[in-house]
Amino acid sequence: MPVTHSADLLLTNANLATLDPALGSYGIIEQGALLVREGRIQWLGPQQDLPSLGEVKQALDCQGQWLLPGFIDCHTHLVFAGNRADEFEQRLQGVSYADIAKQGGGIRRTVSATRQASEAELLALALKRAETLLSQGVTCVEVKSGYGLDLDTELKMLRVARQIDKHLPITVKTTFLGAHALPLEFQDNAQGYIDRVCQQMLPAIAEQQLADAVDVFCENIGFSLAHTRQVFDTARQLGLPVKLHAEQLSNLGGSELAAEYQALSVDHIEFLSEAGVKAIAQSGTVATLLPGAFYYLKETQKPPIDLLRKHQVPMAIATDFNPGSSPILNLPLMLNMACTLFALTPLEALQGITLNAAKALGVQEQLGQLKVGMQADMQLLDISHPNQLAYQVGLNPLSRLWQAGKAINGGR
Amino acid sequence: MPVTHSADLLLTNANLATLDPALGSYGIIEQGALLVREGRIQWLGPQQDLPSLGEVKQALDCQGQWLLPGFIDCHTHLVFAGNRADEFEQRLQGVSYADIAKQGGGIRRTVSATRQASEAELLALALKRAETLLSQGVTCVEVKSGYGLDLDTELKMLRVARQIDKHLPITVKTTFLGAHALPLEFQDNAQGYIDRVCQQMLPAIAEQQLADAVDVFCENIGFSLAHTRQVFDTARQLGLPVKLHAEQLSNLGGSELAAEYQALSVDHIEFLSEAGVKAIAQSGTVATLLPGAFYYLKETQKPPIDLLRKHQVPMAIATDFNPGSSPILNLPLMLNMACTLFALTPLEALQGITLNAAKALGVQEQLGQLKVGMQADMQLLDISHPNQLAYQVGLNPLSRLWQAGKAINGGR
Ligand SMILES: [Zn+2]
Ligand SMILES: [Zn+2]
Repeated sequence: MPVTHSADLLLTNANLATLDPALGSYGIIEQGALLVREGRIQWLGPQQDLPSLGEVKQALDCQGQWLLPGFIDCHTHLVFAGNRADEFEQRLQGVSYADIAKQGGGIRRTVSATRQASEAELLALALKRAETLLSQGVTCVEVKSGYGLDLDTELKMLRVARQIDKHLPITVKTTFLGAHALPLEFQDNAQGYIDRVCQQMLPAIAEQQLADAVDVFCENIGFSLAHTRQVFDTARQLGLPVKLHAEQLSNLGGSELAAEYQALSVDHIEFLSEAGVKAIAQSGTVATLLPGAFYYLKETQKPPIDLLRKHQVPMAIATDFNPGSSPILNLPLMLNMACTLFALTPLEALQGITLNAAKALGVQEQLGQLKVGMQADMQLLDISHPNQLAYQVGLNPLSRLWQAGKAINGGR
Repeated sequence: MPVTHSADLLLTNANLATLDPALGSYGIIEQGALLVREGRIQWLGPQQDLPSLGEVKQALDCQGQWLLPGFIDCHTHLVFAGNRADEFEQRLQGVSYADIAKQGGGIRRTVSATRQASEAELLALALKRAETLLSQGVTCVEVKSGYGLDLDTELKMLRVARQIDKHLPITVKTTFLGAHALPLEFQDNAQGYIDRVCQQMLPAIAEQQLADAVDVFCENIGFSLAHTRQVFDTARQLGLPVKLHAEQLSNLGGSELAAEYQALSVDHIEFLSEAGVKAIAQSGTVATLLPGAFYYLKETQKPPIDLLRKHQVPMAIATDFNPGSSPILNLPLMLNMACTLFALTPLEALQGITLNAAKALGVQEQLGQLKVGMQADMQLLDISHPNQLAYQVGLNPLSRLWQAGKAINGGR
């Protein structure tokens, strides 16, 4: 005899794209229903199998629209001040990178603007950006620090990131990226700066519980393998998981190092070798692809998609939203770019902003699928099939959005 | 002594980016004001020069935000039924174009769906798309037919296009594109179909005043130069201006032919030669660049931007929104793609969706600039400089939008 369920929310007449791998492909349940109780998915399945119900606080006929998990943007630099539109313009007018750098342009300009901005200013900017993500069906976002490069500003950025979900119905996971670039004060002293990151910044941030993970920009133009290892060792001592900006412009072996530390994800990875792919396959590390930065920087070396498939590495997709190399705050567009630029399938792209993005943030037990027990982050979309999401750009199909079972205003 | 103006709308404390070439560059007037009367711009200039005013029905302090002309999407295929997401998915799963065509895929599928759709269905789809454009600050859109390929459906598409501006505050210019592809009924008889276009369709469409211009897809895989000439001759006899899909995949010489007919625009033109550039420079024809199709089709041959600059050909930018080669309904994104993919400057890109897009539609006396006497299609944007528009993607800066001086709901 079926159990009688009471529920806070009952959705009927929906096509479910659960993204549950156990169901195969998109995890489709046509003519489905779903029950939410206390913010979690209590039951889902074909509507004809709906159990007998006790009290239901709210019911909605979805009229055949598609229900999906909320999207997850698992790699952003959402908190910063200023923009670099004039540098973008100068480059297109023929001014060289070197000359722009001489004028104080590039990342240091963003560092300077972010250091000067008040916490309230940074929060206002971040909230506007997070609202844009919500309007795209995104209910979880990762936010990195890394435009402070000093303790006070890194703390300020992370406090701002931690405030976003006090104001908006979006889950925020924070990442400390002190080792993003060398600040002017340490221009010729990378070791000195990394010591500062490890001895001063990381302990303070860990103590204040401001970071959910620790990241490093490991690159010829960034930090070395040895410095990355030093930061990872410190993170491990403090009990924080790690991630890595790796193999974007060259193959330094960062991903193999990251695998050694069971990194949650390695991100960019255009130059990743098969040995690196094998290493992250072994460690269960997610490969996060950032097609917006690839597009914006006019890169030509594509990430090794076939190798990632061969070794069954989960692939995530994210915006990498930042003012320098990806001023593109549009996660649905990344679905199309992942397909058009990297030849992912629409299913792989969609998995990349749902279950695999959740894995890249270590929240795969709570978010990224429609599945019993998971947090009820859900969106109702006016589409004819989920493969439409990667295909079409510009038309926003979002009808309704829920976070933890609560309806969010802002669906169009 | 200054004249006393009465006005329907007074905007103060705005930075104007007029796009008026007489003012140079973006045509910027900082700390500006603007008066609207009877739907037209009556006065604009520095606020300190504001003339003495009589009755003003409505006044708005723009708080330092930027006022620009409404954007113009001068090349779209906005009216069609169905989508081709499954073909997009099949291609990425490795199915060949040939096999997709064998299944009845490609443009013929859209033709079939559009023939079957009712006028009401097509209108509902078109209105949703036009609303998306309005939300991006677009107040004028060109809409082509060309998914009917028979008289009834071509008439139906154009009637739908003509109805859009009855429902929404957006100016619609219609283009008859009967010569878009060969319908199944004329599979091996291009001449027979072109005769049908010229003898049956065009006269009926002209009589019902359903088209503002006539277009042809001139390409190896489309229609020949001789067929294009036949259509252009007929259009000329009927007093309709022409446009041309030209030089997208090869250099057939379509642009030179179009110049001979004083075409409003030639569109795509990736393979245009210097001779062709000179020809359109002479005829005053606009070069319309379609970076969305270039991106989506993974083309590698870029339009000859330097030659277009050298010969001072006005460049427009448009979405080419269509279900096959550019399912991208995002005109602001085209600004970024024009810069990133074609190395246009942000100013050139912005001119491409304002004054030059107006010229491509023959409405440059009414739309595309903030200028005395022009229709008051205006948008207020929360940006720090107009160069930001090409740089940033995803964040919608639209605060307010007016068409012909009337405020439009839908600014975010
Ligand atoms: Zn990044
Ligand atoms: Zn077209």
